[in-house]
Amino acid sequence: MSRRTSVAHFPCSIARTLDVVGDWWTLLVVRDISLGRCRFEQIHDSLGVARNVLAERLQWLVDNEVLVRRLYQERPERYEYELTQKGEDLFGVLMAMWAWGDTWAAGDDGPPWGLSHRSAGAERSHVCHPAVVCSECGEPIARRRVRVTRPRSRSR
Amino acid sequence: MSRRTSVAHFPCSIARTLDVVGDWWTLLVVRDISLGRCRFEQIHDSLGVARNVLAERLQWLVDNEVLVRRLYQERPERYEYELTQKGEDLFGVLMAMWAWGDTWAAGDDGPPWGLSHRSAGAERSHVCHPAVVCSECGEPIARRRVRVTRPRSRSR
Repeated sequence: MSRRTSVAHFPCSIARTLDVVGDWWTLLVVRDISLGRCRFEQIHDSLGVARNVLAERLQWLVDNEVLVRRLYQERPERYEYELTQKGEDLFGVLMAMWAWGDTWAAGDDGPPWGLSHRSAGAERSHVCHPAVVCSECGEPIARRRVRVTRPRSRSR
Repeated sequence: MSRRTSVAHFPCSIARTLDVVGDWWTLLVVRDISLGRCRFEQIHDSLGVARNVLAERLQWLVDNEVLVRRLYQERPERYEYELTQKGEDLFGVLMAMWAWGDTWAAGDDGPPWGLSHRSAGAERSHVCHPAVVCSECGEPIARRRVRVTRPRSRSR
């Protein structure tokens, strides 16, 4: 993968996130693995990206502890990929993009897919739209209601 | 900007979102404008990206109706940029990345910045951590609790 200038040193969590997943196809790889397309061939078929580019990108995600790689066939060697907890947590970023795409890039046909969510302990699932909210008050976060501050403490 | 293969035709809202903002610096441009750095020179100073690359990227965002451009000085011509509603709504994607970066890319020093949120109608603000939740039940969205479905209807 042609790595661009790293901005990991920028003191900004958005920039640091983009340093790991900002590369063009990377979040689509995470999406595919989230949806159960865990093998190299499945991801390759899904994205139609060159094999060497995909291999390099998967290695990048393994190096950054977003994925772990497991041999599932020895001859020829074949691998499948699993999300670490760090990778699982990217699902929130994917869901925020999903919501934006549903609203702003769906075109005349409307959103291509729906989402069904099952709450903890619930037997039935319900139609779900992802929303980005303030964890404290539960309101959707709008830019005009948020201010960047010095951190209260150096750890959470 | 070197445009890669478009995946706008993929029937997936994540892919369509990435088609607009998936380019490496694009979300950092949106971040800067969200934070009030609206002029070409300010964004250039903030990101340290080549002028022609930045100009191309800003034009892309204007073409995609994420930004509007306004002349604020005639000689020499100088422009500033404002987010459209479509652009404002990307704040949710930025906040989801912020949360991930705070958790997984903060390093030993902890998150570099805090967030303060003022709820609608409230006089005081409170410490805020962004969370991606199901709009219906309010629970954080975990991958294992979500299923992709055929859309219930063709419009929302």
